[in-house]
Amino acid sequence: MHARWVIPVEPDGAILENHALVVRDGRIQALLPSDAARRQFQAPASVELPNHVLIPGFVNAYTCAAASLLRGFADDAPPVPEQDVGHNEIRWATAEFVRDGGELAMAGMLRSGTTCFNDASPFPDAIAEAVQRCGLRACLGMSVSDTPSAWAGTRQEYLAKGIALRDRYKDDPLLSFTFALRRSPALAEPWMKEIMVLADELDVPAHACLHASRAEIERSLQQSGQRPLARLTASGWLSSNFILVHMTQLLDDEIALLARSGVHVVHCPRSSLKLARGFCPVVKLLAADVNVALGTDGIAGGNGTDMLAEMQCAALLAKAVADDATTLPAAAALRMATLNGARALGLEQDVGSLLPGKWADVTAIDMQVPECQPLYHPLSQLVYHAGRQQVSDVWVAGRQLLRSGRLTTLDADAILARAAGWQQRIGAQTRAAVSA
Amino acid sequence: MHARWVIPVEPDGAILENHALVVRDGRIQALLPSDAARRQFQAPASVELPNHVLIPGFVNAYTCAAASLLRGFADDAPPVPEQDVGHNEIRWATAEFVRDGGELAMAGMLRSGTTCFNDASPFPDAIAEAVQRCGLRACLGMSVSDTPSAWAGTRQEYLAKGIALRDRYKDDPLLSFTFALRRSPALAEPWMKEIMVLADELDVPAHACLHASRAEIERSLQQSGQRPLARLTASGWLSSNFILVHMTQLLDDEIALLARSGVHVVHCPRSSLKLARGFCPVVKLLAADVNVALGTDGIAGGNGTDMLAEMQCAALLAKAVADDATTLPAAAALRMATLNGARALGLEQDVGSLLPGKWADVTAIDMQVPECQPLYHPLSQLVYHAGRQQVSDVWVAGRQLLRSGRLTTLDADAILARAAGWQQRIGAQTRAAVSA
Repeated sequence: MHARWVIPVEPDGAILENHALVVRDGRIQALLPSDAARRQFQAPASVELPNHVLIPGFVNAYTCAAASLLRGFADDAPPVPEQDVGHNEIRWATAEFVRDGGELAMAGMLRSGTTCFNDASPFPDAIAEAVQRCGLRACLGMSVSDTPSAWAGTRQEYLAKGIALRDRYKDDPLLSFTFALRRSPALAEPWMKEIMVLADELDVPAHACLHASRAEIERSLQQSGQRPLARLTASGWLSSNFILVHMTQLLDDEIALLARSGVHVVHCPRSSLKLARGFCPVVKLLAADVNVALGTDGIAGGNGTDMLAEMQCAALLAKAVADDATTLPAAAALRMATLNGARALGLEQDVGSLLPGKWADVTAIDMQVPECQPLYHPLSQLVYHAGRQQVSDVWVAGRQLLRSGRLTTLDADAILARAAGWQQRIGAQTRAAVSA
Repeated sequence: MHARWVIPVEPDGAILENHALVVRDGRIQALLPSDAARRQFQAPASVELPNHVLIPGFVNAYTCAAASLLRGFADDAPPVPEQDVGHNEIRWATAEFVRDGGELAMAGMLRSGTTCFNDASPFPDAIAEAVQRCGLRACLGMSVSDTPSAWAGTRQEYLAKGIALRDRYKDDPLLSFTFALRRSPALAEPWMKEIMVLADELDVPAHACLHASRAEIERSLQQSGQRPLARLTASGWLSSNFILVHMTQLLDDEIALLARSGVHVVHCPRSSLKLARGFCPVVKLLAADVNVALGTDGIAGGNGTDMLAEMQCAALLAKAVADDATTLPAAAALRMATLNGARALGLEQDVGSLLPGKWADVTAIDMQVPECQPLYHPLSQLVYHAGRQQVSDVWVAGRQLLRSGRLTTLDADAILARAAGWQQRIGAQTRAAVSA
């Protein structure tokens, strides 16, 4: 594929003009000037993107795709105690709900340039099936919880079902796994040790929402006299195999602790703003060498799955929070939305940048629109001005899933029809549940 | 025009389903259920919007359209002392530059649903001509300054040219005027009195950027021992005829002062974040009954002219700044982006809501896309999930300027070609100027 600009994310800040990405067997074989590519390679098919920026596909490091069927339910509402609107509302969800919600979310993800997502939906088997049909890359959360749901009744059942799912799909190149721990109180449970040993054995990261609100901190102090991070530190589980989501309440010594332990942070700026959770100190974290990725959070509480919008919000907000207009430049924002997500999920050898050898997970963005012209700086224009309607083409492992703005593997009309069906079937019922 | 939902903004929070807006001679004649409209009115032409939300067009209460030709120049750069990137960079601008930049900005405004903008470009005569060709509604800033520019060499010349422009266009229903004072140091000048007397005589509002950054406050304290607002108060010029832009640095007693004086505030959240100017206390201002409108700021320093994105950012940010997820609900955010802007500009009798008698300045947004389905709450879905690509149709005074996403009065290809020309002609030159 020949593009006017290629921004490979590695090396940092590079903007290559009139370059070509050569793809073979789903992986990037070469990235070189278009002229040279036309001489050296005889491609069976070639794509011309004369007005486009080509970037690694976005990695959404935390979402709950199934919750898309409850989009907007939590708008302007007080946050629920567990800080996890989507999960609470979809406890009663069925596999069918998760499949339809997952496909709806995936349609939105592809239309905004995401190629990989870390998902915390219940019924991850339904997400796995949808992902296989759709062709997206996903990291599936194996939930572990003592709270019964339609997916599993006991902690043992959660664990057994999660492990069985991983065993079934462990050779699928599009699927990887995490342990989804979700609620911070659970992190203090004795059985957490079993999970963390298992996570290390299987080399599977674990993720949890932590320090997501002042209320969470205050509850923890009341219960144990310690902040949640201190409880977790005492357990000895913090490592580079651990992903902490939100992190809007952080003291400076906690940032140093995160840096020492190699923990990854997932920043969900639009959700954090909307739920008034506080401000994640992104610039301080990055300065301390903590890997900070971006996520959209669950769709019920958040604002959808538009990583381009999330990246823009993260870029703008970080400057104001750090009180420095020059900090977190556009290149750093794009890296958070791509490579840092891949690192957090343990996938940086395979995706997150356009280095030869990695999977060809690629997003093309058309810059020939009034909102992005004139175009002096393709990278900052992309971060500060582009919108999701400019995402024209998306490939995952070399397979084209979006072509000139149209989904190739998903049936948008059918997805919308099923969404309308769910709206009718559960609208009244769920409204009642939410207001109860 | 028949729409699935009409959100008239007045009464507050109303969402009317299957309603019709009857337009006659450019004004709204009636707003009533579609069934009744089909019985009572025999429209010569009718528009069917079965999946759409109809809202009053956005009022961008502060921008500098001409600066669009310098889009992205200030990205990640330290703020210039005067806090006004666009204006500093386009001092050397010509009428041709302003016309072409203005049309580029107007294309972006229409494509994102804006029907009225308050503009601070130099060469407002070029903007006036572009506006007349395009059909948008604009409030033109009559700059008054002691800093020579290509538009005027002396304060007297600024004033004379501004007044002459107003006299030429004062009967044009699409054009209104403000005094654009811009730089806060000027507000302490003795000649300000002349301007404010004139503003009252002509019933023209004046606007200035104020309390836009901590640096501005500190400079003022050094120079005069007073904060800028105190200097302005001492002059006696604060009134409901005054619009203060940015206001990211406000003490509680200053908020009370603004409320007492009836001053309007224009909040530019994305620009304030990007330039690390601080956080405008929107919720406190609204609680004190200060009228708060929304603006995108100049395009060189800001993020374009997408009021839908600006509204979403304002809605999310206000919750975090106020530490309350339930505050500034979606209806309030939409009102800021429409009616409050009209009030600030003295146009609330004519635009800003869909009340019969007002001009038919209307925007239709298609909600039948994966990112906005299912749709339980049209108003919050619009504020939190919709993107500019969903803006399908825009009318100003009943004239359709955007039809199914296509501009009817502006030639997008020609505008892009001219933007490319400017990029070539001034790119190198301006880069040098900016880095100097």
